[in-house]
Amino acid sequence: MINEGFHLDKPLRWGMVGGGQGSQIGYIHRNSAARDRLFQLVAAALDINPERGLAFGLDLGLDPTRCYPDYQTLFQAEAGRADGIEVVSIATPNATHFEICKAALEHGLHVICEKPLCFTTEQAEVLAALAIEKNRVVGVTYGYSGFQMIHQAREMVAKGDLGEVRIIVMQFAHGFHSAAVEAQDAGTKWRVTPAQAGPSYVLGDVGTHVLFLAKTIVPQLKLDAILCSRQSFIKSREPLEDNAFVMLQYEGGAVGTLWASAVNAGSMHQQKIRVVGSKASVEWWDEHPNQLRYEVQGRPAQVLERGMDYLYPELSATVSDRIGGGHAEGLFEAWSNLYRQMGRAMDLVNQGQSVETVWQQIWYPTIRDGLEGVQFVNACVRSADLGGIWVDFSSSH
Amino acid sequence: MINEGFHLDKPLRWGMVGGGQGSQIGYIHRNSAARDRLFQLVAAALDINPERGLAFGLDLGLDPTRCYPDYQTLFQAEAGRADGIEVVSIATPNATHFEICKAALEHGLHVICEKPLCFTTEQAEVLAALAIEKNRVVGVTYGYSGFQMIHQAREMVAKGDLGEVRIIVMQFAHGFHSAAVEAQDAGTKWRVTPAQAGPSYVLGDVGTHVLFLAKTIVPQLKLDAILCSRQSFIKSREPLEDNAFVMLQYEGGAVGTLWASAVNAGSMHQQKIRVVGSKASVEWWDEHPNQLRYEVQGRPAQVLERGMDYLYPELSATVSDRIGGGHAEGLFEAWSNLYRQMGRAMDLVNQGQSVETVWQQIWYPTIRDGLEGVQFVNACVRSADLGGIWVDFSSSH
Amino acid sequence: MINEGFHLDKPLRWGMVGGGQGSQIGYIHRNSAARDRLFQLVAAALDINPERGLAFGLDLGLDPTRCYPDYQTLFQAEAGRADGIEVVSIATPNATHFEICKAALEHGLHVICEKPLCFTTEQAEVLAALAIEKNRVVGVTYGYSGFQMIHQAREMVAKGDLGEVRIIVMQFAHGFHSAAVEAQDAGTKWRVTPAQAGPSYVLGDVGTHVLFLAKTIVPQLKLDAILCSRQSFIKSREPLEDNAFVMLQYEGGAVGTLWASAVNAGSMHQQKIRVVGSKASVEWWDEHPNQLRYEVQGRPAQVLERGMDYLYPELSATVSDRIGGGHAEGLFEAWSNLYRQMGRAMDLVNQGQSVETVWQQIWYPTIRDGLEGVQFVNACVRSADLGGIWVDFSSSH
Amino acid sequence: MINEGFHLDKPLRWGMVGGGQGSQIGYIHRNSAARDRLFQLVAAALDINPERGLAFGLDLGLDPTRCYPDYQTLFQAEAGRADGIEVVSIATPNATHFEICKAALEHGLHVICEKPLCFTTEQAEVLAALAIEKNRVVGVTYGYSGFQMIHQAREMVAKGDLGEVRIIVMQFAHGFHSAAVEAQDAGTKWRVTPAQAGPSYVLGDVGTHVLFLAKTIVPQLKLDAILCSRQSFIKSREPLEDNAFVMLQYEGGAVGTLWASAVNAGSMHQQKIRVVGSKASVEWWDEHPNQLRYEVQGRPAQVLERGMDYLYPELSATVSDRIGGGHAEGLFEAWSNLYRQMGRAMDLVNQGQSVETVWQQIWYPTIRDGLEGVQFVNACVRSADLGGIWVDFSSSH
Repeated sequence: MINEGFHLDKPLRWGMVGGGQGSQIGYIHRNSAARDRLFQLVAAALDINPERGLAFGLDLGLDPTRCYPDYQTLFQAEAGRADGIEVVSIATPNATHFEICKAALEHGLHVICEKPLCFTTEQAEVLAALAIEKNRVVGVTYGYSGFQMIHQAREMVAKGDLGEVRIIVMQFAHGFHSAAVEAQDAGTKWRVTPAQAGPSYVLGDVGTHVLFLAKTIVPQLKLDAILCSRQSFIKSREPLEDNAFVMLQYEGGAVGTLWASAVNAGSMHQQKIRVVGSKASVEWWDEHPNQLRYEVQGRPAQVLERGMDYLYPELSATVSDRIGGGHAEGLFEAWSNLYRQMGRAMDLVNQGQSVETVWQQIWYPTIRDGLEGVQFVNACVRSADLGGIWVDFSSSH
Repeated sequence: MINEGFHLDKPLRWGMVGGGQGSQIGYIHRNSAARDRLFQLVAAALDINPERGLAFGLDLGLDPTRCYPDYQTLFQAEAGRADGIEVVSIATPNATHFEICKAALEHGLHVICEKPLCFTTEQAEVLAALAIEKNRVVGVTYGYSGFQMIHQAREMVAKGDLGEVRIIVMQFAHGFHSAAVEAQDAGTKWRVTPAQAGPSYVLGDVGTHVLFLAKTIVPQLKLDAILCSRQSFIKSREPLEDNAFVMLQYEGGAVGTLWASAVNAGSMHQQKIRVVGSKASVEWWDEHPNQLRYEVQGRPAQVLERGMDYLYPELSATVSDRIGGGHAEGLFEAWSNLYRQMGRAMDLVNQGQSVETVWQQIWYPTIRDGLEGVQFVNACVRSADLGGIWVDFSSSH
Repeated sequence: MINEGFHLDKPLRWGMVGGGQGSQIGYIHRNSAARDRLFQLVAAALDINPERGLAFGLDLGLDPTRCYPDYQTLFQAEAGRADGIEVVSIATPNATHFEICKAALEHGLHVICEKPLCFTTEQAEVLAALAIEKNRVVGVTYGYSGFQMIHQAREMVAKGDLGEVRIIVMQFAHGFHSAAVEAQDAGTKWRVTPAQAGPSYVLGDVGTHVLFLAKTIVPQLKLDAILCSRQSFIKSREPLEDNAFVMLQYEGGAVGTLWASAVNAGSMHQQKIRVVGSKASVEWWDEHPNQLRYEVQGRPAQVLERGMDYLYPELSATVSDRIGGGHAEGLFEAWSNLYRQMGRAMDLVNQGQSVETVWQQIWYPTIRDGLEGVQFVNACVRSADLGGIWVDFSSSH
Repeated sequence: MINEGFHLDKPLRWGMVGGGQGSQIGYIHRNSAARDRLFQLVAAALDINPERGLAFGLDLGLDPTRCYPDYQTLFQAEAGRADGIEVVSIATPNATHFEICKAALEHGLHVICEKPLCFTTEQAEVLAALAIEKNRVVGVTYGYSGFQMIHQAREMVAKGDLGEVRIIVMQFAHGFHSAAVEAQDAGTKWRVTPAQAGPSYVLGDVGTHVLFLAKTIVPQLKLDAILCSRQSFIKSREPLEDNAFVMLQYEGGAVGTLWASAVNAGSMHQQKIRVVGSKASVEWWDEHPNQLRYEVQGRPAQVLERGMDYLYPELSATVSDRIGGGHAEGLFEAWSNLYRQMGRAMDLVNQGQSVETVWQQIWYPTIRDGLEGVQFVNACVRSADLGGIWVDFSSSH
């Protein structure tokens, strides 16, 4: 069950850009990387303020000479070392992802990047091409997709337990920004500022997470068209939306909806996905991630629990239980599953396989998934800004 | 709490059309009418088969001479009696509602009609005009709207507990018709047959229920535009949909979504409504109707319970607790609340008030609400059949 | 599903003692008796104040000459009429149940009695002997036992779905009397006053309800010994307890616990029963009575829903669905099921069968069940008052 | 929120006994120790099989010369090094805890020990005296007590939000050993074998966990007497129980119950604690640990969520949020909180404070708590084996 056995002869030499002191996202990156000992932090540009970055790097046990003031210096200097970093995680504000990711690939690094990968489809395609050219892994931290029960759902769909998939209902609709809290909160401020956040707030910030859950559970479905309506209930956020509804049409006739919101007052997360098939449905909620509801039409609803023998054995190739069923696992374990999968992929590529071949063997959120997220957000924005019309998505894949 | 005290000197002389032996809906009509002794069943045309109708009427204790073969005879004969019926309930298949309701009004009867009132807006307007002309009450049995917690939500909105209403999320999405069960089930068969069901299946059959809950909770919101996508996952149901998604825009900027389905595999009802305001949200679920979730942003979520002193006292004017909090009440009590409100309205009209005046005093699902349901279904069908475009709804009210 | 079909040629002529205006329990008795048209209220002594009783009787549509000032007059006068009552329901304070029940039986009436039947085992045995001698049905209104899912659980146990029953965990622990509310509330006052309530408060008032659910679900288990600890957290209630814990030992090795409380602050009812077998468990909660949780060891937990085809067909002989699954039923329907079963039993006895024979055919809470409740409460009180020692219960049955 | 800031100049030099490859408990110890960088694993005796222990130690990155064949060698050799271990964690079968813990203390080590600390009160007292004499920290891994919401409950009790505590209802009742699975499962086998498990199975294995939650939430309550009934539903487990019920009396009149079970078929954990006060109750469930239910009598029930500003600020001194509210945390974070508190305590003692002084400042499960667990289990066994009688507990503290 606990896969302490799998690890590399030598952990991957790992660097970070961003994720400095007090960063929640930096902490979860470091924790997840360390969890299975596949990554070892050896260098970083942790903070936009170099002194703060150095202090925190020392605090984390880094060699001071490998605490760099910025990502350019980091990539340059490490490239010159025999023991330089092989992989870098990018945990900076959205507007910087593209350039840092591009520079990392150009320096021959594997990349683990916060979503969104970038802002435009063109940028995303540049990165995707570069990753293939350089044969480097680019993983995108859609962290919720590392939860075990998501992969149980994926196996159930694959095995036909649901019948033909007809409907996918998605939502990630919290209420933390029901008021204009950005006035007092820098972490919210940049998310609602177009120059730093890109063309969208909640569609990109939360919507793409649950969209990727759908992709993970039902990989065969191809988006055909979408229609979006978005709102800025806090007027000062315009043109960035704090609420959006999307309708989705998939090739073959399946349909979906997605609700992304930061103004769903009183809600914590409400990230939920329900996949409805011709015979049965599954439903999952990120606030109670160890359970998966399975409802066969005409039978009593079932509650599947993480860690139980009745789950499909195929799961364990992708996601681990780190403690027995009944005990609560949380987001840190889901992220650790992602990092392990990415580490495995990097190891195979390092051994000479092509990144495209590895995609067939090792599940993780790839650069193509990152690209699709960017395309989705842009298509939604385009649809909404044209008054809520159907926008073709089929050319995107 | 229990309002056995309110009743009429003489119960209203009540008749039924439809609702014969084995009819689930007939049983709940009779039960609800009897509950507060405001109605007394004295005549009926219970069955399309006159003999079966007579037998069942006798079984129900009716005078055999007042068990009629059809509604025409019923209305005619009763009109000729000094003690003839004053009010009739219509529990027949959808396609017959218009003509029976019209005939009832023409005979000067108050009417309690199953939804949908009729199929077209024109028909609905005919009935609405006739009801006003004849000064008769027409109540539409949106039964879930009689649950107490719906009215608690209504009071909370009215008092500003939620702040400004921004978003309404509605769904009534069961899974009982995930397969083509109509082959074996007459009750489903007519619902998916256009000649009997009208232009829509799930939008009308379940969607209008939750739409009316929204209307009850947030009466001031006016629908401005809607957009609908509908599907027939069981192909033989075409053009009637067994699944539909609707986006709603309200005057003033609020938005909503509505999901109506009969193919949500494994779901019982999943009739839920969430009203999101700038400060707080409320959420209600018809399968557990005695609770109302109240979530103030930044505060712990609360679960309000039927029958408790902390609820707004204004509720008790409209809906009754028939037993103390903690004990489960169910749909029969909700319907009984509707029937009582309709009885009260009829009594006031009988005393000489105009039905339009009574609308201001007595809440119940009126002919205008029935009309709005018909308009909504037709607008959805129009939108969907045009490929999912925005359809103006503002002229409808 | 809906059993409007079963009824008697003539409804049973039914009287009430107690349950006057404003009485919650009176209302549910009347409603349940009327539901299936097996009982017709024709006479009553509704109120300790004869004038109020008359006024309310008129209000209920009774003949004024059959509104009696007290139960003695009622029984006497009705016995003298050819069309006198055949059955009486007793909805008076606990201290009066014995004498009224005894008098009713002596007048040859069937009886439906609120629990507790009486205060002492001796009294209960007097009544039981009298009922058999007179061949009259005595039903005790353990109303929750009329819920459908309780009988599904009963069938599941009978069919061996749980394996051998090992453990029964029972609780009915509300919080409404966490403070000394009896100072302002007459309905609580008599319950905590020994002269009117008997030797116990919560053990009798709520504990026997859930005890009878256990009896219904697992009828074959015989109580062997009990041990009780009881407390009066509100000191003025002494010696009556407002909280009690009981351990139970059954013949054959099964064990149980029961928690009865009126000081479980913040709880509505929390009436729950869990029956644990060697293979599986079932759990039921009266606040959400339409669901039954079924947990097979090593399999996903299941949630069974009222009204579904997968329930055992045997249920429908005892308890009815009055509306389709998904719709909420409540306590009124559960009580109606009880009244119907009692009506059926009375009808069979009226046709000449012996009440003891009928017990084999028609499930309802019988005088023996009422007797067992009285014995249980007395054994608990004895155990607790001796310091919490094991008390033999085996001689009780 | 995330306390990466607190750490020691140098991590504590840490060793492990037990917790070898494939050990679930070893993994969580290592993960928790590493989480806040207060501990660094430098030496170990990981496995009863020295070769396997060495291989796994190498795998974990240990110096091979510090992978020892047994705890004696470990303590001896490390005591001779200037950089020898300062603290050891003991993750071996129950029967060995006492001797290893004693040896560790004699070698001047701080200890983190799996529960139970030992089997007899005498042993526990020996250890407690030794810890004080040597001025060493002994922490016991009651891991669930590190969940944040447990400490929110503790603060709520301390601040009087519940009023006077009256009742504590505890349970940890899983179903994994409903059948005699020990025949195939070594991990269960030793737990039901007296020589290795001690005098009790479920009371010690799961019961003491929830008992310590009660101690954490309501530290002022002192146990006065207990009564226990225990069963071995799988006969071959005798005299060890696989199910037990306990009644508890606290000084001052509060009461409690505790249900410990391994045969609660179909249950995952069902570890729940409800603390009932004169004004309100709190309830917590380890399977959904990020929520705490708070029920004020006469008010709507509230659901408090981890990570929210409305929680008491005092929490953060003891337990950390490692990611924002809404995201799921799990058992690993709870354990990490324990390890950090123990690390803090050890650091203060290393700086010269007495362990008894540190108890006043730093909350963690201390040797006294371990002692109380042992006393509780022994008292329960004594009570049960005497037929279920009240056993005095007051002399135990």
